[in-house]
Amino acid sequence: MNVRIASQRPIGVFDSGVGGLTVLRALRRRFPGESFLYLGDTARLPYGTKSAATVQRYALNAARHLEEHGVRLLVVACNTASSYALPELAAASSVPVVGVVEPGVRAALALGVRRIGVLGTEGTIRSGSYQSTLAALDGRPEVRAAACPLFVPLAEEGWGDHPVTDQVARHYLAPLLRWRVQALILGCTHYPLLRPSLERVAGPDVHLVDSASAVADAVAASFGDTESAGSGEVHIHLTDASDHFLRVARMILEAPPGHLEVVTLPQA
Amino acid sequence: MNVRIASQRPIGVFDSGVGGLTVLRALRRRFPGESFLYLGDTARLPYGTKSAATVQRYALNAARHLEEHGVRLLVVACNTASSYALPELAAASSVPVVGVVEPGVRAALALGVRRIGVLGTEGTIRSGSYQSTLAALDGRPEVRAAACPLFVPLAEEGWGDHPVTDQVARHYLAPLLRWRVQALILGCTHYPLLRPSLERVAGPDVHLVDSASAVADAVAASFGDTESAGSGEVHIHLTDASDHFLRVARMILEAPPGHLEVVTLPQA
Repeated sequence: MNVRIASQRPIGVFDSGVGGLTVLRALRRRFPGESFLYLGDTARLPYGTKSAATVQRYALNAARHLEEHGVRLLVVACNTASSYALPELAAASSVPVVGVVEPGVRAALALGVRRIGVLGTEGTIRSGSYQSTLAALDGRPEVRAAACPLFVPLAEEGWGDHPVTDQVARHYLAPLLRWRVQALILGCTHYPLLRPSLERVAGPDVHLVDSASAVADAVAASFGDTESAGSGEVHIHLTDASDHFLRVARMILEAPPGHLEVVTLPQA
Repeated sequence: MNVRIASQRPIGVFDSGVGGLTVLRALRRRFPGESFLYLGDTARLPYGTKSAATVQRYALNAARHLEEHGVRLLVVACNTASSYALPELAAASSVPVVGVVEPGVRAALALGVRRIGVLGTEGTIRSGSYQSTLAALDGRPEVRAAACPLFVPLAEEGWGDHPVTDQVARHYLAPLLRWRVQALILGCTHYPLLRPSLERVAGPDVHLVDSASAVADAVAASFGDTESAGSGEVHIHLTDASDHFLRVARMILEAPPGHLEVVTLPQA
């Protein structure tokens, strides 16, 4: 008889800030019985403008914090950290590590299109992570990428459906739209908040690929032979809890964040 | 006979990032013989969205770093740190500390106007530092403030003279313009980079007050009986040196940054 091992240990979800709550939202919908421990490194965010070395150091601090709190799986719900630090995180962690880049790429490839665009932070785009993952999984589609530095602040301002965001999106997307892009990967966990403006600017013929549900698939795959016996509780750890972050968190969760704690991360 | 004490110790200038280079630029123009050590905490920027406690901790780390490097004066070229942490910095430092808030307020008061507006980050505006400093120095002018969270990313994008910035500025400034504001204090060291758009939106009758030259006056006042024997050299320390920050630094200095070093700050 096979013994199925139930676990009460939470799933750890890590982001530079509160944008990764869009991934947490998708995970909770998919695994309502699981417990989650979310860590947002709000005291040092954003990662998207910072160097690979700094992002790696921060990501390792975050992973250590989550491991010290007993997570059984680490979801790196931050595209910049997934792009710059996934091998380092996998090497340093004793639990499985799931990033957001490969799930997003798989979701785009499943559409069967030939011209794929990637939108992301400066760090994510410069790392070439989406481009190289696409090439490794399927060399047929062509790929072009665009860094969109103003998208995160626009999402945090709550301007996901706003003429200014339309104008900024037209600017960043222009080369991709001229190229007749067929699918746009939203390569940053904040970008789903801009969907109304992005849909308007991209038009009805362009698929917008949000990796959050694809990440849930990847998490399901990594569970293997265990099943959930968690309480369904969500704990949120932030390294800084200004009114600003709490407001953005409420906007994403569409509810006040529950168990919230301000923490200091172990330094490397 | 009075002995005038010449000093070769540099003036320390501190900001959360590279925006404070606008203040360094004004100081160099005013004191060409002085040496400067500029510290930008680029690994943890921005400060404007973070809590008072986090900003105070970061500012104290930065001050300690500059003191360990022998500065003889500390210019806090960051409005958020000046707003949240000036008393803490003054108490912890053995050298004089000059912030940017009071000089900016004095420059606005010198205009003799009755309705003064303050533009700043969420942290600066929420702290009430400009409002309370204005009230303490001269109770006559009325003051209103507006937080402008998108201005820093727009400045860093290089969009200081851009239709998107015009549109965002119209949004943030609308209540102040309806109130017929007479002077606008640019309460963030990035904002002078937006001057073309801000001038267009504010119109010719509104004074834009950039505190950089007022800070130079405050520094001159604090020199007392010493005079410069510095080499005129500028050293720049950054806690992270991504391409992004180097590009913004070049934009502000209109030249490649000279002696540049990536440093780790002492932790509190």
